[in-house]
Order: sequence, then C-alpha cells, then structure tokens
Amino acid sequence: MTLEFSRRGRALVGQEMFLVLERAKKIEETGAHVYHLELGNPRQAPPRELLDKAVDALSHRHVGYTYSAGLPVLRQGVASYFQASTGRALTEANVAISPANLLITQFLELTCDPGDRVVLFSPAFPTYWASADYVGLEIIDVGLSAAHGFDLTNDAIDTALAARPRAIIVNSANNPTGAVYRREALERLAGECERRGIWLLSDETYAEVSFARPFFSLAGLGLPHVLVIGSFSKMFSVPGFRTGFAVGDAEVIGKVSLSTSTLISCLPIFTQMGCAAGLRRLDRYTAGVRARCAHATALCDAELSRSAALRRVAPHAGFYFLVDIVATGLDDMEFAHRLLEERHTAVTPGRSFGPTWDRHVRIATCGRLDDVLEGTRRLVAFAESLVKVA
Amino acid sequence: MTLEFSRRGRALVGQEMFLVLERAKKIEETGAHVYHLELGNPRQAPPRELLDKAVDALSHRHVGYTYSAGLPVLRQGVASYFQASTGRALTEANVAISPANLLITQFLELTCDPGDRVVLFSPAFPTYWASADYVGLEIIDVGLSAAHGFDLTNDAIDTALAARPRAIIVNSANNPTGAVYRREALERLAGECERRGIWLLSDETYAEVSFARPFFSLAGLGLPHVLVIGSFSKMFSVPGFRTGFAVGDAEVIGKVSLSTSTLISCLPIFTQMGCAAGLRRLDRYTAGVRARCAHATALCDAELSRSAALRRVAPHAGFYFLVDIVATGLDDMEFAHRLLEERHTAVTPGRSFGPTWDRHVRIATCGRLDDVLEGTRRLVAFAESLVKVA
Repeated sequence: MTLEFSRRGRALVGQEMFLVLERAKKIEETGAHVYHLELGNPRQAPPRELLDKAVDALSHRHVGYTYSAGLPVLRQGVASYFQASTGRALTEANVAISPANLLITQFLELTCDPGDRVVLFSPAFPTYWASADYVGLEIIDVGLSAAHGFDLTNDAIDTALAARPRAIIVNSANNPTGAVYRREALERLAGECERRGIWLLSDETYAEVSFARPFFSLAGLGLPHVLVIGSFSKMFSVPGFRTGFAVGDAEVIGKVSLSTSTLISCLPIFTQMGCAAGLRRLDRYTAGVRARCAHATALCDAELSRSAALRRVAPHAGFYFLVDIVATGLDDMEFAHRLLEERHTAVTPGRSFGPTWDRHVRIATCGRLDDVLEGTRRLVAFAESLVKVA
Repeated sequence: MTLEFSRRGRALVGQEMFLVLERAKKIEETGAHVYHLELGNPRQAPPRELLDKAVDALSHRHVGYTYSAGLPVLRQGVASYFQASTGRALTEANVAISPANLLITQFLELTCDPGDRVVLFSPAFPTYWASADYVGLEIIDVGLSAAHGFDLTNDAIDTALAARPRAIIVNSANNPTGAVYRREALERLAGECERRGIWLLSDETYAEVSFARPFFSLAGLGLPHVLVIGSFSKMFSVPGFRTGFAVGDAEVIGKVSLSTSTLISCLPIFTQMGCAAGLRRLDRYTAGVRARCAHATALCDAELSRSAALRRVAPHAGFYFLVDIVATGLDDMEFAHRLLEERHTAVTPGRSFGPTWDRHVRIATCGRLDDVLEGTRRLVAFAESLVKVA
C-alpha cells in the first residue's frame, strides 16, 4: 500500500541548499578541505556571560518545564531592550519567547487561512517560502532590484498593497541582500498595513549587525497588526540555542504563546537564562560583531571586485553577499555544483530565495576569515574561467 | 480595528490546567506552600553521564546548527535501543529527532487534512486534543473505562475502526491512567490500521516507566503506517531539554525531518549529545526510576484508599493516578479550585483529558515524595469533608 500524506505532507520537499551540503560532506569524507560559504552559522564566540550562565544553569539542573510564553526574566529583558532602542513603553506582556524559525510559521498560521495571499519581497529567506507553501498560502512575489540597491521602494510597497494580501513579511536588515531599509519606507508600509488590516511580520533578525545604515525597528510604532521577530542565534552567535522572540500587541503575543504551548510546550530554561545574561552586555558584544561584519564584508567585496563577471550590491548589514552570476552563463544550480566539485567551495543557490533568483548565488562571510577569503578567491577564479571559455 | 485571526488562531484557547497553575503561583506569592500534584515534571536527577556530556558540549561551544533529522550519533543510539528491545533491524534512517510534543502536531499535519477524522482513546493527553483542534480535525472520542482497568479493549478498537478515521493516536503506557496495554490488543490495532491505510501514532513516552506489566512497543512490527514517538523528557527526567524522537518507516521519517526543517530547522547539538550519552546507561538509570515510580504509586494508593469517595485504578506505569471524584458531588473544576484554595493542593482537572472526564482529577506522584504524600492526604481529607457534608 502506498503511503498517502496530507496536503501539507505532500507540500514538503527538500531545499536545494541541503543537496549542496550533502555533496560537500561527501567531498570532506575523502579528506579534502571544503570552503563553506553557504551557511549563516556564526563562528564567533558567544558572550562569556551568556555561555557561563547557561552552563551554570544546566549544571544546576534547571532542566524542568517553564512558561510557554518564556522565562519572565528574558521576556522582561527583551521588552527593556526594545524600550531602550525605540523609546516606546513595553512590558513582558508584549514579548513571547519561541524559536525564531518557528515564529515564522506561527505568525502565518495565526493570521492566514489556506488559500490566503501573502506577500514576500524577494529575494527572501528560504523559510518564508517553505512555511507559506506548508501552510497552503498563495505567495505574491514582489521582487526588489539590484538597481535600487535592493531597497524597499515605494513602488514595491504599492505592488504589495495592491495584491490585497492577508499578510506581508518584511525583512530588514535583509538576508540575503544585506540591505537595511529606510525608516520612511518601513513606516509607510507598516502604517498602510495597519490601516488596511493587513498583518505584517517584521523579521529583524539581523538588526544588531547593521553597520552601514541606521537600523529602524517597527517595534516602536505600537501597531497591533505588526509582529516583530528576532533571534538570539544571530544576536549572540548561538544558532544552536534555537531561541528567538516576538514583540507586539499583547493580544497577538497571547496567541503566539498559546501556539507555542500547543506546539512545543516551552523552551529550555537554561538557554533562556543564558540569553537573559547576554542581554545585559549586548551593546559591547554586538559592537564587536558589527566591526567584524564590516571588516569581512570589505575584504570580500575587494575580492569580488576582481571579476567583472560577478555583480553585487554592497551590503549595509550582516554577513551575506547576493552575487549576480548571469555573465557566467550558468544557472545557480550548475554554478554551485561545479564550484563545489571543481573548486571545493560551497555556496547557496539563488533559487533558495525565490524562483526568479536562479542567476544568483549567496555567499556567507561569517566563517573563519581565512577560509571565507580563500573561498571567495576560488569563486572569483571559477567565474573568470567561465567567462574566458565563453 | 479588531484583530482578525485565522481559523487556527481562533481555535487556540488556554488549557484549564494553566488557570490552576496561575492561581497556585498567586498563593505561593503570599508565602504559603502549595503541594504540586498537577505537573508531570520529574524531579529526579538525570543520569550523571547525560548532564556531564551536555555541560561539556555547551562549555566547548557546540552551539551551531546541525541536521534537521537530528544528530547522527543520537539517531543511531535510538535505532540501536529499539533494535535491542524489539529485535527488529533498525537504522538511523528510521529515526528522527524532534521535540516529542511537536511530533504530535507533525504527525497529524503530515497525515491528515482539515476536516479529517482522528480517533483518541480517552482519557487522553491534553496536547492530542489541542493539536487536533488546531489542525482542524474532527475528533472521534472513544472512551475507555475504569471497569476494564482503562485497558484497550477489542470493543474500543472496533469502535475506533468503524469511525473510518484518517488517523488514530494510541498511548501505552498511558497518561493519565497509567494503563499499559496488552500486546495482543496493540498488535491487532496496528495490523488493522495498516490493512486499512489508517495512520497510527503510538505515543510510547512512558515506556521506560512501566513497572507492573510488560511494555510492548509497536516499533517492532515495521508497519509503514505506524509512527512511534517517545521523549527523553520522561526517559531521563530532562523535560526542559525538549528533545524527543520518532521511529518508523524511512519515507515517513523523511517527511518528519522535512517538517522539522521547515518548522524549527533543528534541535540544539549539546542536548542531543547529552541524550546520546544517557542512552548508553539507560538500563541502570530507568531501573531506578521504575522502582521509584512503583514505590510512590504504592504509597499514594494506600493514602487514596482511605476515602471511599475517591475511586481509582492501580496504574501499571508512570506517575499518575486518574481519580474518580463523582461521589464528592463536585465537578473537576470546582473540586480542583476549592482543593487549591482551601488545602493548597494543585491537581489537574479531568476535562483536560477529554470532555467526558469532568468528574475526575489527575494527580502526579513524581514530585518530592513528602510533598506528594502530604498533598494526597489533603486531597483525601478534602474529599472526606465533602462526603460528610453531603
């Protein structure tokens, strides 16, 4: 008897990136070194206070259940952080703790029914696509362009609103482009959404790593239809903690917490205690991370500039470059595949960020700097070899 | 503008148990002691090897991403464990790591579409109800009875199959009744499900704490429609690790892993390394836990026997009693509320386990033994006071 899955079960298919990862692992098993530019897996040490606190809590057996909405000290810490950075009064009731990746699905499920429309400004983080497919939404793909520096333009906002979606996801600072959107554009988008009753998810995961443009958070507007999410993964270089947060209207946060209760009960106590300790020295820590991001970005940009076949927009934030490879004549899958086989360098195919981005690849610059630079040089040399042949 | 949530968003409502917990906290804030018999939060120390390994891994900064399907060493460890206990050959491909609570929703979503029927044998674990409501399923409530020791009878199986459901959830050893079902009944249910293409979730979370009847795992049958889940929470007394596992057909496990990838990416590495270390000394550890469960159960049973107003079935496993309070004249909510207010003892209202169980309360015996026994005495005294008044 064949196995009959549900519509959601059938909608689940593997991501292209994992094919790259598996092949990279096979090459490594032969003893060869692979340059990993495909994953946004920060290698920087997390704050000492964070790690010490988590280790201490785990050693002292804080291994029981806790609140679905999150540990009060951490919710309060996140509220204070946003209050300090936005000037808006926020309390524990405005904060829920949950894995940041799960919060994407939680948001879409709480606000949209199957068949509803959701707008993604592409290129867009792969989980948005996977989650919207999984939930059964119609995705309206509003493309941003390199010509405008991948900025959120008024035209893009107009196109998004004209689709009359049930929800929109906006992501500044952006993965994969590194663009930080301007305050006026974000305020306009959020204001229009609130006026029209469109739900808006503002994914601010990379807020703390904006180095070239001031970051603006939508948490300061206090609009009930706007849910802000962020992740300690990137803020503190602890992606394996799987701990993030949502900030928003108390009624919406209540729904998020109920959803967390139903899906996963709660998150571990010791990781939350660690994150709360980390928040107390956030400024010093992220200043260092930002400096490192800016440095790695500048060095990679210099390498990438050596090939006229590779075009890119200088990022404002984070540790990604979205590289246009159209001049090489290869699509993203073939480019990524051959770069891995021939030059032992792994990158992410552009189609992971939306179907129209299949002439791009993403590189992540957050690995060991030597490795990142050598991988980038190999990417450049590979692109040049393609252009010469052509 | 009022906030309009999706159908799923509207389906989320708070559980009765959390109202009890909140009120208990308020009482504790006045400085009073509350006897907690409401939560299955094991207080026993986890295996030393498990905790040491997790602490060591965290200290050494194993805080990056890992595989969505789980850490290979842990998947292999779970496969070996089931192979040893069932005699069936199993590999890593038959195992996915995910929070056990989330696996309930993952199973229902992968196998059922909104409107499909799912059978629950009640009384049944609250998350089954919450998750099925959330997914939008029609719940067929097949009640088990104290008269048959809450056993899974052939009649109950016939009723379940006659409903022609898309999926069935079975839970042996059972929460809240402590019943361990007989091998013949479980094999018949699983065989009929496979023959008819009905998906079966076998929640075996309490397998390792069966002390009064041999436990039989459905993982040994190798039926593609049967997915077994379990949790390190109860196996190793680390509920805060939020780490569980699914065992089944490789194709189904592949879907579960894709679902995990979409929803939460992966679980932490250090908790998985800890669980893998714990598996290597599982036998010694769970022998101690079983002895403790049997001991606490016997002592509580002796206390409960002092009131003719309280009826219960002796559990075969775990650390719960489902107590029939119909003779007290109160329903579960009023009983639980007054027991908390008047005797500072918290229990779980029976309706948490299904709408027909509102003349029962559940007590958990896994807390500190002194507290559990004093709480049980208070429950007995309260019941007696009600009967005397009546």
